[in-house]
Amino acid sequence: MALFVEKFGGTSVGTVERIHAVADRVARSRRSGNDVVVVVSAMAGETDRLLSLAQEIESHTGSATAGHAGHNAAQTKATGREIDALLATGEQVTVALLVLALQRQSVEALSYTGSQVPIRTDPVHGKARILDIDPTRVRADLDAGHVVVIAGFQGVDPDGNITTLGRGGSDTTAVAMAAALRADECRIYTDVDGVYTADPRIVPAARRLERITVEEMLELSSLGTKVLQTRSVEFAGKYGVPLRVLSSFTDGPGTLITHEAKDMEQPLIAGIAYNGDEAKLTIRGVPDEPGVASRIFGPISEAHINVDMIIQNVGRDESTDLTFTVKRDEYEKARALLDRVAAELGARDVVGDTNLAKISIVGVGMRSHAGIASTMFEVLAKNGINIELISTSEIKISVGIADKYLELAVRALHKAFGLDSSPEEEPLDTAVVD
Amino acid sequence: MALFVEKFGGTSVGTVERIHAVADRVARSRRSGNDVVVVVSAMAGETDRLLSLAQEIESHTGSATAGHAGHNAAQTKATGREIDALLATGEQVTVALLVLALQRQSVEALSYTGSQVPIRTDPVHGKARILDIDPTRVRADLDAGHVVVIAGFQGVDPDGNITTLGRGGSDTTAVAMAAALRADECRIYTDVDGVYTADPRIVPAARRLERITVEEMLELSSLGTKVLQTRSVEFAGKYGVPLRVLSSFTDGPGTLITHEAKDMEQPLIAGIAYNGDEAKLTIRGVPDEPGVASRIFGPISEAHINVDMIIQNVGRDESTDLTFTVKRDEYEKARALLDRVAAELGARDVVGDTNLAKISIVGVGMRSHAGIASTMFEVLAKNGINIELISTSEIKISVGIADKYLELAVRALHKAFGLDSSPEEEPLDTAVVD
Repeated sequence: MALFVEKFGGTSVGTVERIHAVADRVARSRRSGNDVVVVVSAMAGETDRLLSLAQEIESHTGSATAGHAGHNAAQTKATGREIDALLATGEQVTVALLVLALQRQSVEALSYTGSQVPIRTDPVHGKARILDIDPTRVRADLDAGHVVVIAGFQGVDPDGNITTLGRGGSDTTAVAMAAALRADECRIYTDVDGVYTADPRIVPAARRLERITVEEMLELSSLGTKVLQTRSVEFAGKYGVPLRVLSSFTDGPGTLITHEAKDMEQPLIAGIAYNGDEAKLTIRGVPDEPGVASRIFGPISEAHINVDMIIQNVGRDESTDLTFTVKRDEYEKARALLDRVAAELGARDVVGDTNLAKISIVGVGMRSHAGIASTMFEVLAKNGINIELISTSEIKISVGIADKYLELAVRALHKAFGLDSSPEEEPLDTAVVD
Repeated sequence: MALFVEKFGGTSVGTVERIHAVADRVARSRRSGNDVVVVVSAMAGETDRLLSLAQEIESHTGSATAGHAGHNAAQTKATGREIDALLATGEQVTVALLVLALQRQSVEALSYTGSQVPIRTDPVHGKARILDIDPTRVRADLDAGHVVVIAGFQGVDPDGNITTLGRGGSDTTAVAMAAALRADECRIYTDVDGVYTADPRIVPAARRLERITVEEMLELSSLGTKVLQTRSVEFAGKYGVPLRVLSSFTDGPGTLITHEAKDMEQPLIAGIAYNGDEAKLTIRGVPDEPGVASRIFGPISEAHINVDMIIQNVGRDESTDLTFTVKRDEYEKARALLDRVAAELGARDVVGDTNLAKISIVGVGMRSHAGIASTMFEVLAKNGINIELISTSEIKISVGIADKYLELAVRALHKAFGLDSSPEEEPLDTAVVD
């Protein structure tokens, strides 16, 4: 008899109908002999509804504005405390409804808030981190034959205040519960049926991966494949929790994310990620001396602009060029800051390009195979695609190219690295088109 | 510096605008130097919304009905546990929003769920009774200068499960908090500005009472003046909590409900209550012997029909007549049962009347004044109103009359017992009409 922690997100429990579908799935899992702990999010739209109530309260322009200027840091923490208490009701509603649906099927089940488990967190409202989970009570209920349904995304701080873990927190709750209970698997049900070698909307021949390593998954997550929150994958890796991503709407084995090394037949490349809305900025002719990088990136960071790739060429004539990429919608803000810094540093000029796309190939096999990068560059060259930037890590190679070539490049690389599904595996509709 | 517990119901916090109005009122009370604990209900309509979600879940007709017949008592208790967890979110939302509104006015405030206080109850889901309140944490927050906002209607049982107190539970929470904190006053804000000598819709000259005793209030509550839940008045009486009913929409002193005896100038009668939708049933010619009453009322009680007044006349010829009143909408059901019982008992016949109204005059002064009843009968007689039933308690006299005379009777009695407001106290619009 195995113990599974099964997590369902807001879309999977978005309506009464869907809550019943989740109950069906959980009931099947329970009836086939497993111990089951379920973690659920708020019904889709509920968190936004609650937040907009809070915003209505905060933006109220009544007569009573006396002392309003008194808002300070202490009050902001106090406000965070109340927003967390407010938002925590979203999951509390879902767990109660799901248990009612399970009871209707004669499956014995109990709901828990984060406080009731208890899931102990630090007191940082809105983005609390889990410190400790006491699994005693949940374990006792499992032993008594109950399915335990736990509100995701929330916990309780050392003073008994309700906290929330921030966006994607329900995945983290599920992984942390699985670690605390030493569950056999943590199953994250989503609206996709697994992790793919590439985005199927761009590459029709993309294949679902049976397995992927935690490290590969982390690279893919951070590159924009939003199947799982980075934090929950890190957590799973840290505590050795086997994590499975699968569809809440269809049956299928999904993709297992493990810490274990893959077997020999494993392809070199796990998948290809991309991002079509990048922009690059280059500051040319800056003095090649210590402290320059921090004078450039200090203001950018203070403005909360996320910088992705940074490339500095080898200097010539005691000056150098420095290029970095940002999200396209932050380009103008970054450009204005960079122009000012360039003037201060006496740099030659600043040039930019807002038509950039980024493609990354990811795979732990890359470590021992020097030829991956050259294959990648060759494939792009053959297709007449100029590489504007290159950045590499131990298990990833990223290139920046003109965004108009994005789809062509992803498909060509997918095929070249042997990721395309074999004809018999292809989805039916693709086969018909052929 | 006084300590007030202030309770606001669902209508008073029904919109963001109204929550701000409550925050204004609480802020004024706090700024004038009082310690304030606030108890709030769910926003009007929210509890019904949550219940209808639960009903949607329960009435779902999906394919998965296997084992549905297995519903038993244990599952019903389990269901109650989940309904309570679901409903408790309603007040949790309100307390968070009200604290946000107070913080916006720079009033330091903290929200609490029932579990957080903690308000400890027995484990009877849906109608839990408060066992004990630990005021330590609330007291510490008050001492630190905070307004404490507590979710009404809810508590936590000895095993940490969320419970609810049932309809009107927020009033009970407020009174219980006031008792636990030895508050100077428990203020119940409602949509009326106090307790009146009679329903102002029927008696334009009705006056707001400055004070009323707990006993009088209990009689008036049970007679249909739905200003306060009976349970919270009982609670206030038991623990000697001074209770004040006042309007959440206008300013004014409201009505103080106390355990103390009234002063000498107090009128004999506190007020007049009525009910226009009664019906009476008479079983005639039943044997005048022991056990007959229980054979008549046993089946009525088993059918959950509430019987109000019961009058048995002195028997003649070894048989007697027995009359009782029920709510009009339960008349047909009661009549069918009574016809069957009458046949079994060999009674002569059953007669009924569905056009009955009940009028009660209530006042602790009645105890020492024998003339009240005769004055009442005389007033009704003068107005040509026949009395069909009479029932009395220590501080109340109730009569049943034809419902068409209801308004006439209430106004005549109100005037006869000196309850009409003096001209200078009359509302402006009444004065103009005169």
